[in-house]
Formats: sequence, structure tokens, C-alpha cells
Amino acid sequence: MDTGDAFDPNCPTRLVLDRIGDKWSVLVLLSLADGPMRFTELRRRVGGVTPKVLTQTLRAMEYDGLLTRKIFAEVPPRVEYTLSELGRSLHEPVAAVTRWAEQNVGRIMGSREAIDHAQ
Amino acid sequence: MDTGDAFDPNCPTRLVLDRIGDKWSVLVLLSLADGPMRFTELRRRVGGVTPKVLTQTLRAMEYDGLLTRKIFAEVPPRVEYTLSELGRSLHEPVAAVTRWAEQNVGRIMGSREAIDHAQ
Repeated sequence: MDTGDAFDPNCPTRLVLDRIGDKWSVLVLLSLADGPMRFTELRRRVGGVTPKVLTQTLRAMEYDGLLTRKIFAEVPPRVEYTLSELGRSLHEPVAAVTRWAEQNVGRIMGSREAIDHAQ
Repeated sequence: MDTGDAFDPNCPTRLVLDRIGDKWSVLVLLSLADGPMRFTELRRRVGGVTPKVLTQTLRAMEYDGLLTRKIFAEVPPRVEYTLSELGRSLHEPVAAVTRWAEQNVGRIMGSREAIDHAQ
């Protein structure tokens, strides 16, 4: 498949944008950049995510090839999530958007307040 | 306000991530990077967006201070949307994520097919 076109309504790039634009996917991706993690570690690191939503997010990211799930034959079984090469290549662009959000959240909330007060 | 923290469940950075991660916001931002546009031009450029959803997207982006809406006193009135300085500062990070999506859509769809076939 050639390069996609986000402006083409029929191009699956739009499905990809929906997936990687998801807040929980972003936070999981940034967390796993530091190394493999278990479910409970991820849940603690991401913060504020329900087990159900974290499970759905991890399955969607595995389906998209962004991470792999490894099960170790221990008692109880240990499951680790690791970013794939594809997932690692997404880290820097997503980290840049997140840095922008963290640096500009004050301006955005300020804009909202100004508009609310003007009404 | 200081810098936000995307990993803090109580930080509004998460609201910002939700907004700027939205596919339609991304496509509007990339479109307006070329210069001011009218509603009908934007709708044609973005492609596949309903007028209702485009209106909601533009209002949310105006609320967040990412764009301004200018009304020109003509008959019929002309309305133009222009990226603010804040919106322009978001262009490069968002363009990088979109380029990644366009370049890797084939790999992602390939991962989905491989998993579907393995089941």
C-alpha cells in the first residue's frame, strides 16, 4: 500500500488518526516508551483509567501492531506489554503533541474563560 | 498556570488532548495552515464532514482559542476562519502525527489483517 491521504474520506488514514488521537492510547504509548510494563503497572502509571478501558485500549493497540503482549509461563502467569518498532516510531510525534498540550493548557483554559465571561 | 501534566487525571491537559486528538480538528487545523477559509471551502477541503460536525468542530476550536471567526459586513455576510497564533503553533506537531499516519497506514491495516486471519 502506498502513502495514505488524510484528506481522502475513503482512506483508512482516518481510522488511524482516530486511533492514535485517542487520549488513552497516547498515555499508554508514552508510558511504554520507558520499557515493558505489566497491566497493573500501566494502570497506575496512566492514572484515572478504568481496567475495562485500559484493556480495550491495549487490545486496539495490539490489533494495530503498536505493541505486543507477552505471556510468561509463571504462576500466576505474567503478562507484559512492549512497544513494537512501529509503536516506537510513533513515540516522538505523539510526545511532541503532548508537550504542546502541557505547555499550552493554560492558554486554552484562559480562552475558554474569556469567552464564557463575555457571554 | 504552570505547565500541565498529561499523566495527572485532574489536569485539564487531558481535556486538551481529547480536543486536539479529534480527527476533524486535525483536518481543519491542517487546512487553515494554508490561509483563512470560508465554511464552504473548509467543508470541501476537509471532505466527508457533515455541516453539523464541521460547525461543532469550528466552535470548539474557537472556544479553545485555536482559530478566530471574522464576519465581513457584506451581502450576503462573508465569514472567514483564521488560525490564531496558538493554532499555528500546534500545526507542526499535528502535521507530524498526520504524516506518520499517512506513512504507516499500510503497516497498521496489515497488522489488522494478519490478526484477523490468525483467528
